[in-house]
Order: sequence, then structure tokens, then C-alpha cells
Amino acid sequence: MAETNRQLILRNRPKGLLAPGDLELVEAAMPAIQDGQALARVKYLSIDPTMRVWMAHDTYMPAVRPGEVMRAAGLAELAESRHKDFKKGDKVVGLTGMQDYCVIDPAEKRGSFRKVPGIPLLSDTAFLGVLGITGITAYFGMMEIAKPQKGETLVVSAAAGATGSIAGQIGKIHGCRVVGIAGGGEKCKWLTEELGFDAAIDYKQPDWKQQLAAATPKGVDIDYENVGGEIMHEVLGRMNLHGRVVLCGLISGYTKDDPALESFAMVLVKRLRVQGFIVMDYLGRYMEAATHLGKWKMFGKLKDRETIVAGLEKAPEAINMLFTGANIGKMIVSV
Amino acid sequence: MAETNRQLILRNRPKGLLAPGDLELVEAAMPAIQDGQALARVKYLSIDPTMRVWMAHDTYMPAVRPGEVMRAAGLAELAESRHKDFKKGDKVVGLTGMQDYCVIDPAEKRGSFRKVPGIPLLSDTAFLGVLGITGITAYFGMMEIAKPQKGETLVVSAAAGATGSIAGQIGKIHGCRVVGIAGGGEKCKWLTEELGFDAAIDYKQPDWKQQLAAATPKGVDIDYENVGGEIMHEVLGRMNLHGRVVLCGLISGYTKDDPALESFAMVLVKRLRVQGFIVMDYLGRYMEAATHLGKWKMFGKLKDRETIVAGLEKAPEAINMLFTGANIGKMIVSV
Repeated sequence: MAETNRQLILRNRPKGLLAPGDLELVEAAMPAIQDGQALARVKYLSIDPTMRVWMAHDTYMPAVRPGEVMRAAGLAELAESRHKDFKKGDKVVGLTGMQDYCVIDPAEKRGSFRKVPGIPLLSDTAFLGVLGITGITAYFGMMEIAKPQKGETLVVSAAAGATGSIAGQIGKIHGCRVVGIAGGGEKCKWLTEELGFDAAIDYKQPDWKQQLAAATPKGVDIDYENVGGEIMHEVLGRMNLHGRVVLCGLISGYTKDDPALESFAMVLVKRLRVQGFIVMDYLGRYMEAATHLGKWKMFGKLKDRETIVAGLEKAPEAINMLFTGANIGKMIVSV
Repeated sequence: MAETNRQLILRNRPKGLLAPGDLELVEAAMPAIQDGQALARVKYLSIDPTMRVWMAHDTYMPAVRPGEVMRAAGLAELAESRHKDFKKGDKVVGLTGMQDYCVIDPAEKRGSFRKVPGIPLLSDTAFLGVLGITGITAYFGMMEIAKPQKGETLVVSAAAGATGSIAGQIGKIHGCRVVGIAGGGEKCKWLTEELGFDAAIDYKQPDWKQQLAAATPKGVDIDYENVGGEIMHEVLGRMNLHGRVVLCGLISGYTKDDPALESFAMVLVKRLRVQGFIVMDYLGRYMEAATHLGKWKMFGKLKDRETIVAGLEKAPEAINMLFTGANIGKMIVSV
């Protein structure tokens, strides 16, 4: 057993990509454990885009503060246990942090550790990937938010990543036409030749937008969005009416300050549901609305006000008044 | 009866606010009607922000083309009828266009005209407002998309407009705390003193953001969004986890080309549902996901791949690889 515990400490919040020194490798003393705790040797660390967000600011979790060990999910093997439910040699996954050794303290619930069952056909690292946080992200994003239906077209961005590659295959399992967007020929080849995607678009090709259009002849019903920015914008432009967007990641914005992404970032972090709405879809139910509105109006629960401008020739001015804030209530022109 | 039919013709697609000449007033010949048609004298035109969009580009309706009469909903009175279901003096609402007279042809369904019932307590113009397109927009946006629950906080932007003022009152009817955002003291006073809003924020005040925060001490559960841009961004920042955004209008963008709004504009026009998603909300159901993923993986329906970088000290580099696209599949560091 090493006499020291190597740790990666956050020193500076990165600008753009991580620069040398943003995470500093230090040697700390080996942690000592008490009754009810266990000591684990970290074997593997899961490296995920969300780490860049943890380094930047509070979101769905508090940011890592400068001076702290960098947060990371990992797979670890117990070196010593003073907890009745764990024994030396057990393998666990949880928030180990970026270090050689971590302390597991089930009473504190810190790190959300769970034991890894030994399953013959599955490697230990599968519990960081396909059965880990990225795999279950793809599972719930697809099954709970996207709800894929047979025959629908699904587009996945960052499709060759840990989450996107699983999300796309879940779409195939449910009978969707699946189109992945990824960077480079090797990734695209993997998606179509090994994972069974119907098409893969290399966004590094100059004509990728045309390729996306050609690969989605019936439009797009589901966007499993991991990237944001220009790629998301292009996919939104291919979407069919009443389509669904699973806003799972916005990695194009994680290494820069892009104000255009900020509102979408809040939608993601707060798990908001944003629904575009145009009343045309409901015109067949006019009488239902009119009945309620009319009743509320007559009972004084609904008040209205009109701004009436006289003369057809004043209509252009009346339109402008909507944008200069000159009207109160309903804007009307009397002809 | 006038011998000519004054019309406002779209000549140019406006830049920003409408400039003189974008809509040109011309005198056309009186339209002649045939059997099955009726001639209507337009009395009132509904003036709505969406008109500015119709002048600019195809959206949920084709754009008005230069040379055409500007599209508008209106209330008209029949001057002559050669259709069995209509008689002289009947009042109708529908897409009259911006002109003195229009032809009603039920067989063509052009204009979607419906007869206005004479209801004692309601003015004719109510069928353009509270019982017209803006009123039913507020009704369905609130009842079908927002689904307000007692005790929730609703924020409405453009709250003194035709749709916002009704949407906010529907929130009050359903027991919400309702905060309106509008421009200017007169509008705000109307919202709180006459319509019963709990608070109104004048976005022209320099401290409006602080006022918004103070008026929403429990955060925001529903954003009835009519404006977009900075106002929407600020409201999103106040939203509670799992809140709902009814994306009904983005009027701050209608008179300018703002790329930051474009993605939201597509969400609106295509009536997309965008749902922010973080897997933390589903961690309690880990076994359900793992069972399915494990089964798919063992049956060969799910393939995965790992990019493993050796050495704790390489972890910062591994994070950067996610953003430079250097990994395929799950990114892992072996410690």
C-alpha cells in the first residue's frame, strides 16, 4: 500500500479547456478510517463532460471549490473495512473523487456508494459506463422523456459518447430510425457498422447540414440533445411539429461563455419543461374555451381592456404600438 | 356603400419596426360575389404581435407575400349575402385581411369565418379579445400546457397585453400567486389594482430584476412567456426545479434578428416540448435501468466501447479529450 494518497486538487476555475495547474496533483497523507467506515483503493475514474460544469459553477450540484479534491465517480476496491456490510476486496462505485484512496462512510451517505455485483459477462468498468451513470442517463432520458415510438426518427448528438451511443441503441431497440451526429469518420463508422445506427453525420464535414437533411427525410421526432449550440439549432430546424427534445447535455457550451446557451442551460439544470404553443392546434375546441371565458367574464372574474385606434390607415402604426409598448390590453383598429 | 375597397398591401418585409410604405394603402375595386358567397364590411381588426412574424417569414402559417393584402383577423358585418347560412346584418369574425370589404366563401373555408352570437353583456369587440384569438390562446396555454395548481407562483410577461392579462387572471382563478411583468407604471397599476395580480414588475425600472426576485419569494413554478430574450432569461433564473414554461410568444425578437432567440423560436413555432433532464432525479430507480441495460447488453442488443487513459495524473487531459472529441464511447481513467 502506498504511504501517501495522490489527489487532484482544483486550484483554479478553468477558462476554456483545462490548463496545466487548474487541477494540481498533490500527495496527501493516507486517510485513516474509524469504526463504521471503509478505505477504498480507487481503480477507475469515470470522466464525464459534466465535470467541466462542476469546476465552473453551482448547478444541480454545488461546484467543486478551489482547494477541494476534484469530484469524480469511480470504481474502487476495499483495502480495509470497519463497516459490517463491507469487507476487504469488495468492489464499489460512487463518488470517489480523483485520488488513490477514499473513505467510505455509509452513515454519512457521502459519495452514494453501492457495491458492484460480480457478473460473469460484465467487466467492472461496465459499472461506470453502460450500467453506470452514463448508461442509466441514456435509459431514463429515452424511456421517461423521449418515449420512443416505432417508426419515429431519433437524432442523437455526441452520438459516439458514452451516453449518446447508448441512447441511440435504445432508440433502435424500440424501432426508431436513428441518426447520430459525431465528429470524424472513425466514430461515424462505429455508429453505423457496429452499433446499427441508420446513419451517422460527421459534423466536421462541410456539408454536414445537407447530410443531416438527407438522413432525416421524414423530419425528426426526437432530439436526444447532448451538445447544444449550432448542432442543436440545426436539428431543431429538422424537427416535426410536436417533437420532443431531451435536453441532456450542452457540451458545446461547457468550455466557453456563450450567452445564447444560457437559457437552455437553465432549462437543463432545473429540469424545466418548455413547451412551444400555438393556439391553432386547439381551434376545434373554441366553444370549450369561449364557454369558460364568457362565464368568468360575466361573473366579473375576468376583466379586459381595449386600445382602439380609429382608421384602417392607422393599422401599420397600431402594429408598431405593440412593440413600443403603447397599448394596454387588446389592440384593435376600427375600420 | 363605398365604391372602392381600401386595402393595406404588403410591399416590403419590414426591418425592425414597420416603416412608411411597408404596408401601402391602395384603393381596389369593390369585390363582386357569386352564389355561395357573402360580402362583408370590416368593422374592427385585431392587431397582434404575430402579424410582425407573418410579414417576415413562413412559420406556422405561410408568410404574407409582397403584393398581397395584409393578413388580419377582424370582425365584419355582412353587407350582402348569396349564401343560405348568412344574411345581411350578420356579424362574423375571421381572417378578413386589412381592408374595408372582404368576400366570405364558406365552401373555400378561407378565413375560417364564424358567426358572432349577439350576447347582451358582451361587446362585439370581445370576440376579437377575451373571446377571440388572444383570449383562447390564454385559455389553452394555461389549461392545457401550464395546468396551474393552487399555491403555485405564475409569472406572466407582456402581462398587460391581450393574452398576458387573461392568462394571469386565469392563474388567479386557479389559486396561483400571479406576478406580471409589463412596461410602465400605468400598466402595472392596472394589473394589480384592477385585475388582481399579486405583484407587477415594471421592466423599465432599473431594479426590476431585484423586484422580480422579491415578488417571487418561493421561486416560479410557471412562466407564461410572451417576450423571450432578457426577460425570459431572468424568469428562468427564478424558476423552481421541474417548472413549466408555456412558450407562447417571443415578441422581444419579432422586430430584430437575434440569433439567441432563434432556437426558442423554433420550439415555439413547431410546438416542441423541450425537457431538461438530469439523471439524479431517477437514481432511486437504478435497478430498473440496470436490469434492462444489463439484459440488452448480454443479448447483444447494446454494445459499448471504452477509451481508457492510464494514470491519475492524466485525468485533466482526459477531461479535455471529451471536448476535443478524442474519445469514443465511455471515457475512463485507470488510477
